[in-house]
Formats: sequence, structure tokens, C-alpha cells
Amino acid sequence: MRKWIGMLLGAIAVVLLILTMSCKPAGNNVNSYAEDRAGIEDLQARYLFALDFFDMDTYVSTFTEDGVLDIVAYQAKGRAEIRKKLEQARPVFNPASEKKPGLYPPTGRHNITNIVLKIDGDKAVGRSYWFHYGNNNPKRAAALDGYGHYEDEMVKVNGKWLFSKRKIYNEGVEKWIAPSKNPAW
Amino acid sequence: MRKWIGMLLGAIAVVLLILTMSCKPAGNNVNSYAEDRAGIEDLQARYLFALDFFDMDTYVSTFTEDGVLDIVAYQAKGRAEIRKKLEQARPVFNPASEKKPGLYPPTGRHNITNIVLKIDGDKAVGRSYWFHYGNNNPKRAAALDGYGHYEDEMVKVNGKWLFSKRKIYNEGVEKWIAPSKNPAW
Amino acid sequence: MRKWIGMLLGAIAVVLLILTMSCKPAGNNVNSYAEDRAGIEDLQARYLFALDFFDMDTYVSTFTEDGVLDIVAYQAKGRAEIRKKLEQARPVFNPASEKKPGLYPPTGRHNITNIVLKIDGDKAVGRSYWFHYGNNNPKRAAALDGYGHYEDEMVKVNGKWLFSKRKIYNEGVEKWIAPSKNPAW
Repeated sequence: MRKWIGMLLGAIAVVLLILTMSCKPAGNNVNSYAEDRAGIEDLQARYLFALDFFDMDTYVSTFTEDGVLDIVAYQAKGRAEIRKKLEQARPVFNPASEKKPGLYPPTGRHNITNIVLKIDGDKAVGRSYWFHYGNNNPKRAAALDGYGHYEDEMVKVNGKWLFSKRKIYNEGVEKWIAPSKNPAW
Repeated sequence: MRKWIGMLLGAIAVVLLILTMSCKPAGNNVNSYAEDRAGIEDLQARYLFALDFFDMDTYVSTFTEDGVLDIVAYQAKGRAEIRKKLEQARPVFNPASEKKPGLYPPTGRHNITNIVLKIDGDKAVGRSYWFHYGNNNPKRAAALDGYGHYEDEMVKVNGKWLFSKRKIYNEGVEKWIAPSKNPAW
Repeated sequence: MRKWIGMLLGAIAVVLLILTMSCKPAGNNVNSYAEDRAGIEDLQARYLFALDFFDMDTYVSTFTEDGVLDIVAYQAKGRAEIRKKLEQARPVFNPASEKKPGLYPPTGRHNITNIVLKIDGDKAVGRSYWFHYGNNNPKRAAALDGYGHYEDEMVKVNGKWLFSKRKIYNEGVEKWIAPSKNPAW
């Protein structure tokens, strides 16, 4: 009789082990491309809101502590240096800081499209397009004024995706244009 | 012997309980940011197709029954009022309704980018950019002609995301422009 | 006593069966709209990088072997024919192939927005907007120069989404414009 129970116990243990290994814990999407992609898309969008509305605290928080912003013209490493470079270039990124009599403050907006992402555990590489429009003209007319592409490296830190490196190509300045080879895959 | 079986049963019950609690039912992604974000992205895109092709049945169906459309100039509450406001402004949203001799009907298209989403159960808040281009000119040339941003509140009703409130800022009209503070986070 | 054990075994078998059926295998998101949408968004973006950087190997690999590219003006069926049509039209899609003295090579970029997707198992239908900008002008100034929409049929082959048919409407050429009815839902 004891042998029977022993065999029974053994069989149950094996079945439970298989079940446990094949089951997915609720609320924890291990190895889900969709969950990671959703987190990264949100990061990408938050980055651009922060840039265009010149919210530098949020902007630098989208990078890791030692993250790199590379706009070809220069590389800034770490949140403090990234912030410093952006503050120096504020009029470019935040035309609203320049007021003109008789006109309401102009705005500029960066947009991201065509996000290609390869995700491997807590690391990801991305390629995507950016373009910019604004109304920094006497009629406050919407005007497209720049475009290029991003090459990103991202890491998941405590469940949150951050940029470890963002390289920005810009087709409006000869020395910042992208090589002709497809940067995606 | 009965005591043995009792203990065995108890142990199995505990293991099964833990397994059941940690398992995720198939086809029902409880608390999945990706599933909710995917549903909301589809809603956002369907809204814009319906607007640009002036499919008012589909357009109003993207709002809850008592949903609010706020374009700063006015607030419309409920599907009937939202439809009425849109129909009054049809030439703005549907230039194809105006025919001109010797030219094919013009079109206009709203686009959404940079979607930031915070989701909490059956409620969500969103921030995103919109821009518009069209060809309502003698050459039917593509032309960017407006942009701004959306501030959305959404609810999941019977598993389907809907707008409970959409507020639209427009950088082309002084009284409709956004405050300078980052509306995202 | 044996009867007891038999009943116990039967009860355990039923519970395990229910558990197995209600559990979701890890790393295999059966019937997940988000996983399929994420895969399709990546496909859409990879297609556009390949087109704009004229990476024809990658471009044709986004179609099924017998996939169809329909630009209203013509239908190309199968990867070989699609490649041939694109190569014939290379200057349109890859202005960088035309060099001009004193100017760096121009570029052109297609963008996708407003992706509406209906997914049913291994098949999907999509509607989305495309627009194009470039700098093929003496000042290398960013300029919007075209737009339209996509009507797609996609299939999942070995876990990877591919285009089985892409139809492209273009609002810049009278015979290629879309019907006025909402192509989405």
C-alpha cells in the first residue's frame, strides 16, 4: 500500500512540475515582445514630449545614469552633461522661449515613426524615423523643417526601459547625414 | 494510513491553489499594459480614419455614450451633440465634399504620433501629437497645414476602449494653443 | 482503501486537466492581439526602412513568396517581380542614387501612422496612412511631397508576419486616389 502511495506521489510531483514550468505567472510577462515594445514606445513618446516642452528633468530621466546622447556633432555622457548640452541649445529645441511682440509664442514638435525593435532580455536596439515641424514664422504657419533617424540602445532597469545610447542622424546638415546602407534589418 | 492520505491531500490542495493563483488564463490578459495599449492604439487610428473619411457613425462610436469632445472653442457632450458639431464643420474636416471643376476632390488627413499612455485597470489617460496635411489647393500638392496635441481620457467598456474625453489643442489658433508646461510625464 | 485512492486519483486528474486547459504556456502568447500587433508594427517599419534605403533583399522578404504589391497602376506578384518593378523605379524611391555636383545626396522617407488592425489567427487585415518627405531640392530643405493610405493583408508564417498583399493609394495622382468611403471600420 505504501508503495502505491509513493508511486502516486511521484506521478503527481512530475505533473505539477511540468504544469509549473509551462505556466505563465499573471502580471509578469516574461519574454513578451509586445510588453517590451509597449514600454519602449511609451519611453520614446515621453522623451519627445519632454524635449519639445523643454521639461529637462523628465528628458534626462529617459536616459540611464551613464546614458549617451550622440548627435554626431558631439557626444554627451551622463544625465548632467546631456542636460547642459540641451540647455545651451534651448532656442533650437524650445522656440517658445523667444517671445516676439504681437505674436503668440511659437512651438516646435519632434515626431517619431517607423519604430523597428530587436529585443533580447533586458536589452534592446531600435531604429526609427524622426521629423520636426514648427511655426516659428510670422504667420505661425505649420512647416516641416527637418528629419533624420534614430539609432538607439535601450536597457530595462527595474522593469523600466531607458536609453543607454541614442544616436541621432539629421538629413539637413551635410556632416550629420546617415550612411546610405539600411540601418535597420 | 488515513492520516497519511489526509496529509497528502492537504499538500496537493496547497500546491494546486498556488498554481491556480499564479497562472494566467489563456486569452484573457489581465493587467497587461501591452494588450491595453494595443487596443487604445487601434482606437486612436480608427478615430482618425472615421474623421478624415467623414464616417460619422464610426466616429461617434469611438466615444462613450456621454463622451466629451473638447476643442477648447467648445465642448460637445454625448454622441448626438458631437455628431452635430462635426456635421456643421464638415468642410473643414472633409474638403472632398466641396467639388471644383477640372480638379479631382481634395483630401485631408489627420495623423497621430508620440502616444504616451498611463493605464490603470479600466481607465487610461493619454497624451499624443496630431498633425494634418492635405491637398486642397489647385495643384493637389501635399501640404502640412496644422498641428497640436491630444489630451485623452479613455475607459474600457465590455473589453473595448473608448474615449470618455478628448481635448484637442491646436497651435494654429492663438486661443487654442497649449500651455507651455509638459502635458505628459 | 483502494477505492479511496482511486477517487483521490480521479479528483486530482480532473483538477490538473482544468488547470492545464486554463493555463497559458510561457513564451507563447496564444490569441494575443498585442503580440500580433507588435509583430506587424515591426514588419511595417522594417518595410519602410528597406524601401527608403533601397535594401531590396530585405524589402522583398517582407512579402510572402507569392505576395502581391498593388500600386493601382500595376500589380506585381511574387518577390522576383516586386523587386524588378522597384528596381525600374529606383530614382523615385531612392533619390540618393542620383548625384549632383556641389550637393550631398538627397534622401526621401516614407512614414506610416494610424495603423488599424483586425487580426484573426494567422491572418490580419490592416489600414494605415503613409506620407513622404524628402530633400531632393537645391537647398536640401525638408519638404512634404506625397501621401495616401495602405490596405494590407498579412499572414503569419512560422511565427513571423508577412505581407500577402499590399495595396497603395496615392492622393497625388488622380487615377490612384482612394474611394471616398472609409476603408477602415
